[in-house]
Parts: sequence; structure tokens; C-alpha cells
Amino acid sequence: MAEYIEGKRPVIEALRTGVPLECVLIADNLQRDGLVQDILRKAKSRELPVKTVRRADLDKKSERGSHQGVMAQTKPFQYAGVGELIDAANKQAEESGRALIVILDHITDAGNLGAIVRSAEVVGAAGVVIPNKRSARVTAATYKSSAGAIANVKVAQVANLASTMERLKEEGFWVAGASEHAREPIWQSNMKGKMALVMGNEGEGLSRLTWEKCDFLISLPQVGKTASLNVAQSATACMYEWLRQNWR
Amino acid sequence: MAEYIEGKRPVIEALRTGVPLECVLIADNLQRDGLVQDILRKAKSRELPVKTVRRADLDKKSERGSHQGVMAQTKPFQYAGVGELIDAANKQAEESGRALIVILDHITDAGNLGAIVRSAEVVGAAGVVIPNKRSARVTAATYKSSAGAIANVKVAQVANLASTMERLKEEGFWVAGASEHAREPIWQSNMKGKMALVMGNEGEGLSRLTWEKCDFLISLPQVGKTASLNVAQSATACMYEWLRQNWR
Repeated sequence: MAEYIEGKRPVIEALRTGVPLECVLIADNLQRDGLVQDILRKAKSRELPVKTVRRADLDKKSERGSHQGVMAQTKPFQYAGVGELIDAANKQAEESGRALIVILDHITDAGNLGAIVRSAEVVGAAGVVIPNKRSARVTAATYKSSAGAIANVKVAQVANLASTMERLKEEGFWVAGASEHAREPIWQSNMKGKMALVMGNEGEGLSRLTWEKCDFLISLPQVGKTASLNVAQSATACMYEWLRQNWR
Repeated sequence: MAEYIEGKRPVIEALRTGVPLECVLIADNLQRDGLVQDILRKAKSRELPVKTVRRADLDKKSERGSHQGVMAQTKPFQYAGVGELIDAANKQAEESGRALIVILDHITDAGNLGAIVRSAEVVGAAGVVIPNKRSARVTAATYKSSAGAIANVKVAQVANLASTMERLKEEGFWVAGASEHAREPIWQSNMKGKMALVMGNEGEGLSRLTWEKCDFLISLPQVGKTASLNVAQSATACMYEWLRQNWR
């Protein structure tokens, strides 16, 4: 389904951060102010079609009524298949002896999704798996929240996390779930080789079904008085522990 | 200087997240809608004075003109002295053999400051040092961005980071700066004992002056194609590496 970005500054932001776009739509009676000229210049340098349409057409497409005469139509994000992630991970394992797939068990905050994708790219993960329901998904905003990393990370959207975890096990991955119920600190767990790291949702952590499918649980000790770790921070620290154990 | 939070929802948010407040100010002609009743209820349960003032007085105090007849005056954040942080760290070192002080070299993003404070609390750092100029400082927003952790973390605000680093060295701390110029991955650096971890600013990393004062540099390997790590993510992974090396 087409997604539209509305308004001058959001469209400039999308052009700036490299959100894949189909085209820019401009109202026929639009005043060509500085922002609009900036949009036209950026669209031209990206060889992006600019279509002049009636303002009423924009009103119809607009969800928020904040288009200011300018909208951009995004290209739908190209999700990868789980098989593609497994292929990439196997190739990585052959070359470096390590591979990582990150599974997000119903992360709902778009900022957390972007931050995790960014860190996954930095540690060289083969990809990220998200469920296709009750989960943050990849949108134009993910380009910003991942600082552009989403363009270089394979994301698979699946109907059933549990069966994906089963499949990964059959393919020789160890599936580790981040949970405070783990018995030992993560650095005492063996994360060597091909790993799938499962991160639970912001509020409830791992769901029971996901939890049961894990080979083992891992945990970052939390020694403070009150606070708990944000899920994106936690995912990053876990990914670096995976990288540390597999470094050579 | 007094800081004011403006508007019904922001004041509710401040009451909810435990921002230390002096009082709530309410316009004399204010309609008592559901939100206002919620504010009065929350203020009462926190035994917070509610003052009725003329709307013109709120207009005068308002910076954004978005007070909607409700403002809350915050208590100024109580910064700690560096000596207090050192005392806490020494106590911690005696008890557990480890201590950590985090130094932020002109972090400018308020969200990053909050996220780092949150992780610092979780790993049990003795405190955070920030410069008193050109740096994000602790505001009401930090309560939200740190998920409340700021209430349990000592933050010192100093005029001169370099002399603070000198002082920490004299007190027996190793001062490690996070920098991509480090020769080895962080897990090959010795982070045992009393450490000061210096994180550079979002754009330029460590300043030259700070860099020169470090005993050694540490680095999280970044093996991805494009992206770099967000500074809060990076700080968290470094803090966990410190905790790992000192775990017993």
C-alpha cells in the first residue's frame, strides 16, 4: 500500500535521509517559496518525478490534513524472506565463523525499531525478523530513526515467530532469548557461531510462546536501584557481546 | 533559575514521571475539565502546593505561549560535586572492586543524555560528569528520557573537563576515551577497577583537549557498511564491557 509523506519539511527530511520515493506531488496552485524550491532541487538531483496535481487530490490522499500543497509517495519497503536472511547468515558464517539474526518479539516503538536496525547494521548482523502484526514496521520514519541504516539491513516480516525460530534451529542456529529470567550474565553464555538473538517487547518482554522456543536465555545484569534498560540499548549490548565472543 | 512546564498534558507528564516540582500554577478563570482534575488529583497526592494566579501572570512566565492556564514550576536539579562522585566511586570500589564515572564531552542531544543516564544507573555507575557549557543539561525532559533514572544518578556539572580528568587520574582512576582511533577492540583493553569513561560529542567525537588527557582509547568495532553507532548505544555497550571485565 502506498504511504504518503505530507508537508514541506517532512518531504525535505525524506529526501535528505534517502527514503525511497516513487514521486513528489505538488498542488497546481502552490506558491514556490524557498522550501518548495529546495524540494524541487532535491527531487531533480535524485531524478524523481514531480507531478502537479489538483489540491483537492492531495486533500483526498492526505491523512493528517497537513500537506501544505506537497506530498511524497514512498516506495513500499522491500521486506526480505527468512530464507534470504539464512542465506546471508550462512555466507557470513563461512567467511568469518559468526552470524547473527535479530528477532524482535513485538517491539512496538518505531524509534526502538530504528535504533536496533542501526546497531544491527553496525555489528554486521545478517538481518532482522519482525512479526507482521502488533509490531512496529518499517516506514519512512525508520530511515531517520535508523540514521539511514535500514537501507543496508535485510528485514523479514513473518506471520509466525515461533515457526521461524524452529526453522532457524533446523538451519543450525542457536536461538537465545534476552530475559531477566536467565540464570547467568550474558558473558557466561556461549554465543559463538550462528546465533539468533530474540528481544522481547518493551512492556512484557518475551512472549510465552517465543520464550519456550528459545534454546537458552541470556541476560545483561542490571545492578542499579530502579531503572531497567531500554530494549534498544539492551539489544545493542547483547549484539556486542555476540561480536566479542566471535571476534578473531 | 526556575524552569516552567507549560500546558495540561506536559504538566500531567511531569507529575507522572516524578519531575521534582515546587508548585503548580493555575489560572483563576480556568475551566476544570478532566485533565485539570487529573492534575489537581496528582498534585494533591504528591502534597504539592497549587496556586491560583491571574492568567496574565502565566502569560508573563510562559516561553512558548502554550500554557493553557496551567504551569508547573520545577525545582532546580541538584548537581553533585565531582568530589561527591569520587567518594561514591571509592566506596563502590571498596565494596565490589569496581567503579565507573562517565564523562560526557559536550553531548548536545537531550535524548542521548537521558539514555546514557539511564544506562549508567542500570550498570551501577557512580555518576556522570557534564560540562557547564555547550552541552545538554538536566531538565524536566531528562526525567522522561532517562525513564526516571536521573533521580538516582549523581550528575556533576564542571567548568573544565580536562582538569576533572586530571583530578580523577590523581584519585587512581584510569581514564578511557571512546574513539575510533583506538588500536584494539574494547574487549582487548583493560577496564578493570576504577574507570572514567569519556564519550565524545555526537558530531565530532572527543575534543582534542579531552583526547589528550585520556590514559588510553577504547573502541567498539563497527563492521557494517555505512552506519555508525549512536553515542548512547555506544556508551551502553562500553559500560557493559566495563561491567563484564569487573564482574565477580
